[in-house]
Amino acid sequence: MRTEISELGEFGLIKRLTEDIKLSQPTSIKGVGDDAAVIDNKDKQTLVTTDLLLEGIHFDLTYFPLKHLGYKAAIVNFSDIYAMNGIPQQITVSLGISKRFSVEDLEEFYSGVKLACLTYNVDIVGGDTTSSLTGFTISITCIGIADKQSLIYRNGAKDTDLICVSGDLGAAYMGLQLLEREKAVFAGQKDFNPDFAGKEYLLERQLKPEARRDVMEELKKLGIQPTSMIDISDGLSSDLLHICSQSNVGCRLFEERLPIDYQTAMMAESFHLNVSTVALNGGEDYELLFTVPLSFYEQIKIVPGIHVIGHITEANMESKFVTRDGHEMLLQAQGWNPIRE
Amino acid sequence: MRTEISELGEFGLIKRLTEDIKLSQPTSIKGVGDDAAVIDNKDKQTLVTTDLLLEGIHFDLTYFPLKHLGYKAAIVNFSDIYAMNGIPQQITVSLGISKRFSVEDLEEFYSGVKLACLTYNVDIVGGDTTSSLTGFTISITCIGIADKQSLIYRNGAKDTDLICVSGDLGAAYMGLQLLEREKAVFAGQKDFNPDFAGKEYLLERQLKPEARRDVMEELKKLGIQPTSMIDISDGLSSDLLHICSQSNVGCRLFEERLPIDYQTAMMAESFHLNVSTVALNGGEDYELLFTVPLSFYEQIKIVPGIHVIGHITEANMESKFVTRDGHEMLLQAQGWNPIRE
Repeated sequence: MRTEISELGEFGLIKRLTEDIKLSQPTSIKGVGDDAAVIDNKDKQTLVTTDLLLEGIHFDLTYFPLKHLGYKAAIVNFSDIYAMNGIPQQITVSLGISKRFSVEDLEEFYSGVKLACLTYNVDIVGGDTTSSLTGFTISITCIGIADKQSLIYRNGAKDTDLICVSGDLGAAYMGLQLLEREKAVFAGQKDFNPDFAGKEYLLERQLKPEARRDVMEELKKLGIQPTSMIDISDGLSSDLLHICSQSNVGCRLFEERLPIDYQTAMMAESFHLNVSTVALNGGEDYELLFTVPLSFYEQIKIVPGIHVIGHITEANMESKFVTRDGHEMLLQAQGWNPIRE
Repeated sequence: MRTEISELGEFGLIKRLTEDIKLSQPTSIKGVGDDAAVIDNKDKQTLVTTDLLLEGIHFDLTYFPLKHLGYKAAIVNFSDIYAMNGIPQQITVSLGISKRFSVEDLEEFYSGVKLACLTYNVDIVGGDTTSSLTGFTISITCIGIADKQSLIYRNGAKDTDLICVSGDLGAAYMGLQLLEREKAVFAGQKDFNPDFAGKEYLLERQLKPEARRDVMEELKKLGIQPTSMIDISDGLSSDLLHICSQSNVGCRLFEERLPIDYQTAMMAESFHLNVSTVALNGGEDYELLFTVPLSFYEQIKIVPGIHVIGHITEANMESKFVTRDGHEMLLQAQGWNPIRE
């Protein structure tokens, strides 16, 4: 018997492989299924998250400078720890490297990792370096810490909670499209130096994303503790559906509320893409998506850079996207990085 | 300027990339450079280790059954935690998978990981699953725990300490040679089913290694606390040199004391290999190499399965291998998995 992986999809596959996993260690508080695992250490909790990035799948070295790649590889892990309301503290960096890399190339990559660590006050504490017969392979694991009572899981959203998101959506995806287009135009030319004037924001969102430490700090200052949280890596739809399924609730997400930058909208138009689809499914935004009780509405609506984009409903109301003209459509998970056909 | 990675070698490269890393978190006790990183959690310490395994470099799926691969991928991480005198508790499993894998293949791999976790009482708490354009990629991170006062680093060996090793050496390497030879013989045939009668031990050491939890338990029972310890993954020479350089000492390692199984010796002879070279440089033994004060000699020499193979000297005596006929040769690091030319 042979079941193709594409029949199950990424999330179906993970479910199939991990659904029979039981936790036996008394210190294992949370296993598979959230932004990070949670390990008990008396009054504090240790968080662990890990990301595997493969050349040709997650990045293209034609246009992705190695320093930026190192920076981003670290950031995506920090983002997972912030999404639990934790603080990243240590990372391990494992690399599989092929012959075409020089020592200077790796120093360039590492300089990006180190810059991210310096910026976010994280230590590099280990890793593994090995040769690779094929592409460049990056595996980073991040260890964080959190107070037991302030941890935020994906499963705490309640009926009537407000759905909030930081920043804006879809820009990283449009940055990727732009880079891919220019790569095609410049194919075969040695000096790959296209004019990106006026599109810097899109490139920055793709090539040098930040983790939203500031959002968590701001919420803490305001005394707002979200009921559930996730970082947007696969795309708003996909990640909101994780919250809904794990919290056993439904939702209403409003098209008119989606925060979209001007450059994202312009670029989507020039690519003949529906900008709402880009915001819903683009992914790699590394913004925080969270829910707060309705009672926080007056407070949260005035926080700069935080947008209320919908609300949680009971599970039997399903998870729906409400278009500008009032139509309701079922939300669909359509991550940016499905297991490929 | 372009420096080839082969000019520096694996350890030179790691040194170059990590020598300027400073630890800023008060909880980061030990960073790069031991079997695992150490993170402070009040009275307990959290250990973190990670391994990246790439198809074609670390394993060949022609003869490596997926279940065994899963088992081994977990074991090599547990071994690193035991080598700190810690107890492995949690792992994360990240996989890069190509189209040729079916769901059943991955279940087979996972069944090996789960069996190892069940045997060693470790929880699977997370990971990352992504598609791969090329080979099968495995990245496992293990979290362990240890008492602050019983942690054993690589840097504690002292002049006159005894060098001890558990089990026997070189068998996993000969198992690999055997599999590679049979693969060549059976090249192109569909049913790869050679007769391995009488060589089961070598295959088991290569395909289903164990981590030496029992050794640490036995030493604890006897009240023997090693002064330094490492697990043998790269090979005895290479790993003993790690202890010597980090402890700033020299050593004498005696050829006549090397523990070698009968099957290993027979197979080395049939391959026209010097069996001592195999024991020194074979690697993948996952035995524990450790030092104890000379005063423990009477106690340690009668522990079943522990062999005293040499002693530590002052640094100016250098690190030397003493052959059966009394010649002294400089020990050389020659890991099994150098960064390839």
